[in-house]
Amino acid sequence: MSVSSPFWRQSPPSLNPDFLRQGRQRQASLTKPAGSLGRLEQLAITLSAQQQRPRPAVDRVRIVVFAADHGVCAEGVSAFPQEVTGQMIANFVNGGAAISVLARHLGAELEVVNLGTAHPLPARDGVVMAEIAPGTANLATAAAMSEEQLQAALSAGRDAVQRAAGAELFIGGEMGIGNTTAAAAVACALLDLAPEVLAGPGTGLDADGLRHKVAVLHRALQRHRDTVAEADQPLPVLASLGGFEVAALAGAFLAAAQTRIPVLVDGFIASVAALAATRLQPGLAEWLHFAHQSAEPGHARVLAALDADPLLRLNMRLGEGSGAAAAVPLLRQACALHNQMASFQDAGISKGQ
Amino acid sequence: MSVSSPFWRQSPPSLNPDFLRQGRQRQASLTKPAGSLGRLEQLAITLSAQQQRPRPAVDRVRIVVFAADHGVCAEGVSAFPQEVTGQMIANFVNGGAAISVLARHLGAELEVVNLGTAHPLPARDGVVMAEIAPGTANLATAAAMSEEQLQAALSAGRDAVQRAAGAELFIGGEMGIGNTTAAAAVACALLDLAPEVLAGPGTGLDADGLRHKVAVLHRALQRHRDTVAEADQPLPVLASLGGFEVAALAGAFLAAAQTRIPVLVDGFIASVAALAATRLQPGLAEWLHFAHQSAEPGHARVLAALDADPLLRLNMRLGEGSGAAAAVPLLRQACALHNQMASFQDAGISKGQ
Repeated sequence: MSVSSPFWRQSPPSLNPDFLRQGRQRQASLTKPAGSLGRLEQLAITLSAQQQRPRPAVDRVRIVVFAADHGVCAEGVSAFPQEVTGQMIANFVNGGAAISVLARHLGAELEVVNLGTAHPLPARDGVVMAEIAPGTANLATAAAMSEEQLQAALSAGRDAVQRAAGAELFIGGEMGIGNTTAAAAVACALLDLAPEVLAGPGTGLDADGLRHKVAVLHRALQRHRDTVAEADQPLPVLASLGGFEVAALAGAFLAAAQTRIPVLVDGFIASVAALAATRLQPGLAEWLHFAHQSAEPGHARVLAALDADPLLRLNMRLGEGSGAAAAVPLLRQACALHNQMASFQDAGISKGQ
Repeated sequence: MSVSSPFWRQSPPSLNPDFLRQGRQRQASLTKPAGSLGRLEQLAITLSAQQQRPRPAVDRVRIVVFAADHGVCAEGVSAFPQEVTGQMIANFVNGGAAISVLARHLGAELEVVNLGTAHPLPARDGVVMAEIAPGTANLATAAAMSEEQLQAALSAGRDAVQRAAGAELFIGGEMGIGNTTAAAAVACALLDLAPEVLAGPGTGLDADGLRHKVAVLHRALQRHRDTVAEADQPLPVLASLGGFEVAALAGAFLAAAQTRIPVLVDGFIASVAALAATRLQPGLAEWLHFAHQSAEPGHARVLAALDADPLLRLNMRLGEGSGAAAAVPLLRQACALHNQMASFQDAGISKGQ
């Protein structure tokens, strides 16, 4: 690894096997039938190894919502008008959005990063201004972004992680009218699957709207077929078909893992970013927890490609990091059980056969 | 309804349709695509109607663990020795058991009710002494309990709910070495299914142990075949094949619903109690939330019979109320979102198509 290579060319560290072994031993000593806490056991063991401490914790949770607009909205692919991206940025910092409520409820830190909206917004307390352009170009007719813009978006993700120093868990959310189209396009390219498989209603397309979205995706994949043919090259795929917030999420996930902060991945769009990022750095996979399976139908395929079994299946499909926030209490409970339960020996309890 | 009829003969109240309608209207007004919070939306709406207030809350959670021993342990149906029931009662109140940790973490009230252990225990701070007998009789060879004992167990559940006045959510847990055998027997009788379908490893039987447990269940069902033939009569089934804690859970669920306290049902054993209780009073179903699907294989069949789609599938199989405790944060988050999110109108956000 060269010190001069960009951060996305650097592999995250591997998990320390000593902590994994110690964690398994501790779970086996606690006053419960072996394995009876199910997935909560492995969650605590993995967090222990990620955080390199025998008693893991996710008290300090950092949620960063990356917002950006999408040129592909010119094709009429969303049920909501594009100005909603900017309106929701205001709603995030005013405390009225779902992720605002959940962050407050969890005692989590919430940061909003504006990567560029179609209608430029004034600076606003609580919003990090990191505008790359007033949205991406229309991916159906051109590259969504230039190489320089892609690097700026990846770096914006890394910068958000640097501001999160000390966090015990990183959640990346997103907001951007049209971004399920961009994410579906990236997933189609990376997984070599048809738009029919990966496109969904997003914020609420009807059947006609969905058919149109699929047609737009076919056009986009045809337009970028030379890039798509290099599906093992996630950066050109992200530049051609992605969104600023999708690339920023990929950069943030890599940077979090590189600084030993475990990541809790949200829904469809965040998972597509995780897919692109793990194609860049397969070692990232050890740092990712998957929060939920979204109602967006393509999500199951993306999760399968990531070999991910998410914690929740609640039919959520909001984005913003909301599904990840919903799963945070499970991680906290896993840590509390791991750290605070009595052992058979301490409690004087007879062990099973 | 006669005032002199026992409480389990009285139907719980129906949910007020006005609160259901108002709750749906409120969800539709919040700044998110319609339906995008998935099951969290209906959770909040149902809690609102159960609690008869437009802003539901589950801040005050009452967890009651009913503990009892089982005569069927004489047949060698558990991987753990019977003295563990009493040892775990001590662990609950000493704070080292899984449910103790989770209750503390949630800020929930935890009560332990001793319905009778094979080795009588001294009175202990934090344990409600409600001993019916030193465990049930061996259901493979006799009725597990008399009619009077059954009524005492049902009433012990009701008494626990009366001590929970003001609770916004009731969770019933259980502890009793051998109780997956009793619960499987009750479920076989109520659902007319074979032991092979409903018996599982419990705390950790191996394949030989499970075959033996199935054989014991066949013997028990044969022994009580006249009772089993009246499967629409859940009380004789509970008396013949149940456990004190299973009956207490059934009584507690009915009493909670009768006093308008929503119930969050835990795993296999609690679900079998819920099944028996809904056979007694079908109106109970409106008051039940189902927390998780256990790794105990019979649980899926019991949930299906209850038409229940649980919130979590984490492969837990501990009992104690632990799976229900794990799901409490989802209910709390559902309430926070319902109560605190901004409306489209208040936030000045454009609505979708």
